[in-house]
Amino acid sequence: MKNIAALIEKIQPLDENVMLLTQRRLDNLTKPLGSLASLENMARQYCGAKRELRPRLPKKKIVIMAADHGVAEEGISAYLQKVTAQMVHSYVYGRTAINVLARHAGADLELVDVGVKEKFSDQLPIRHHKLAFGTHNMRYGAAMSREQALAAINIGIDIANKVIDEGVEALGLGELGIGNTTAAAAMASVFTGKKVAALTGYGSGINNNKLNHKIKVIEDSIAINNPNCDDPLAVLSKVGGFEIAALAGAILACAARRTLVMLDGFVSTTAALAAYRITKNVKPYLIAAHLSREPGHQVVLDELGLRPNLKLNMYLGQGTGAALGLTLLDAGIKVLNEMATFEEANVAFALADLKMSGENNECNR
Amino acid sequence: MKNIAALIEKIQPLDENVMLLTQRRLDNLTKPLGSLASLENMARQYCGAKRELRPRLPKKKIVIMAADHGVAEEGISAYLQKVTAQMVHSYVYGRTAINVLARHAGADLELVDVGVKEKFSDQLPIRHHKLAFGTHNMRYGAAMSREQALAAINIGIDIANKVIDEGVEALGLGELGIGNTTAAAAMASVFTGKKVAALTGYGSGINNNKLNHKIKVIEDSIAINNPNCDDPLAVLSKVGGFEIAALAGAILACAARRTLVMLDGFVSTTAALAAYRITKNVKPYLIAAHLSREPGHQVVLDELGLRPNLKLNMYLGQGTGAALGLTLLDAGIKVLNEMATFEEANVAFALADLKMSGENNECNR
Repeated sequence: MKNIAALIEKIQPLDENVMLLTQRRLDNLTKPLGSLASLENMARQYCGAKRELRPRLPKKKIVIMAADHGVAEEGISAYLQKVTAQMVHSYVYGRTAINVLARHAGADLELVDVGVKEKFSDQLPIRHHKLAFGTHNMRYGAAMSREQALAAINIGIDIANKVIDEGVEALGLGELGIGNTTAAAAMASVFTGKKVAALTGYGSGINNNKLNHKIKVIEDSIAINNPNCDDPLAVLSKVGGFEIAALAGAILACAARRTLVMLDGFVSTTAALAAYRITKNVKPYLIAAHLSREPGHQVVLDELGLRPNLKLNMYLGQGTGAALGLTLLDAGIKVLNEMATFEEANVAFALADLKMSGENNECNR
Repeated sequence: MKNIAALIEKIQPLDENVMLLTQRRLDNLTKPLGSLASLENMARQYCGAKRELRPRLPKKKIVIMAADHGVAEEGISAYLQKVTAQMVHSYVYGRTAINVLARHAGADLELVDVGVKEKFSDQLPIRHHKLAFGTHNMRYGAAMSREQALAAINIGIDIANKVIDEGVEALGLGELGIGNTTAAAAMASVFTGKKVAALTGYGSGINNNKLNHKIKVIEDSIAINNPNCDDPLAVLSKVGGFEIAALAGAILACAARRTLVMLDGFVSTTAALAAYRITKNVKPYLIAAHLSREPGHQVVLDELGLRPNLKLNMYLGQGTGAALGLTLLDAGIKVLNEMATFEEANVAFALADLKMSGENNECNR
């Protein structure tokens, strides 16, 4: 906890002066004031984080935290628990959705095993930080110990620091973990005080019967664990998950390192809410990429005061929404860097007019 | 009109069989069924239009139709009428928003003068199809004659046919024209029967006083022209614009040539509604890129039954939203082409397992 406290101390606000100067340039670009809206906001936010007026396009990476959930044995998912491990292998094979969409976004990829229920070969090209073979079933007690939650947060911090040391300038968040919308809904309910039923969705595709069962399991889990909503670590450890805690840690580290975080769906946004409840100062470093199909996602975004840019109705996770969100951040920075200001355009027009009248003179000779 | 009637005859539905086979592949990709939602829908739609199962990424172009509006003299815009021509020059100079974002999307660009109120040099690298120096002021009579509206539609048809002949496989729509959200709101009100006030917005950035004046001007224009809502050509000619009619023509031609159209904001979507009222068969060829700030945009999208993918709150036009939308279409096609099916992944896993056990054997020797 000392480690985390020291980190929190380091988080500073965005650079207001740089943002003011960036806004001045944005307002002078040849377009109606503010008309590129979210694109402009992201560009300004990026400048304020980087403390640069005309930054190059960010080096981008998506980090996928993977872990299993004991509560999966309650049958709350459309998939068996072992699918988490299968998806890790599938990711390594290189043709899952996030492999394709990260490439589309020009983002590197990295997968961290924080607690998948399978012993992976050391040779598997992922980061190996397994804390346990999945969490305990939260319906019958805490998903993990407080120490484990801290350890998971610290893994997230270390990974984020490492990738930032390697030059990453914008971090997309992803996750893999059968059962993690169940954990996210439990956390979101505790954090917001909203009813479980209003926050729980079809996840990766359950039917209505299973949805009702999922809601009941989450209600039971909250009842038996009764986490203190003012103690983010209690919420993370009792009804959270290893990957969610690691994502929260990565967010804290990114904020401390002035690095923007592109959120993905319900799970990573709930991790952001946990980080936000640890310190509100992470907020300026967050961007909401998309709104997923999960009903809890909008609630958590509202709690964070974030507005998603994409509404594609996706429900895949893995960082797929974050990847698409990163392409929009790039678009915003290109607007800032490549559009002409009115001044630049006028000078150019004047030169073009000279040239054109010169040519006409030549024709008239 | 004979030309247009012949074109309408040629419009066919998307290829159901190709879409069925595409859906089968999408459903077999290593992800929860349907979880990439809009990305999958766009990929399937593209395949159904192209009649190809695994199409390469489309060659993309954004066509910007530019024209002036007589009604601009009523002071309904934040900008003077001459800004249309200035923006044409700015576009040629190459550093307006659409230049930047089309490049971001990997889309070519083309600007067509259908009726800008400035005599452009023939040397200006745009397509020259000026029908008039702007429309008439619709507050005092028809914006243009029925013949002019037909001519503008035919220009759009010709341009679309030309770019498709040149190999373009997905067409983004853009427009330039001070006053064209005023015309679009008038058209939308006539087509949908909704109150003008519910459809009229700040355009490129007017204040509330001017907004009320804009609403009054539109109401007056509809009252004096009283266009028959069942006669799209009457609506286009009486309260429309040259660029809007040309966009409607381009949409008709694209549908006839099985080419998907990426709509932009309120103006191009209203052009799509005009085309849709000419023939509902254009619908399968339309994609809604984004939802702009203009309140009428959502209404017109609803009327067309289209759901926008992006909610960036932009209000720039020019095809800027369409450009971003085209990047999402690309993402969908990449998902279709590059993701593994469960079958492919299993085969690969089996091979990887063999390899891994082989390596282990070697280590154990």
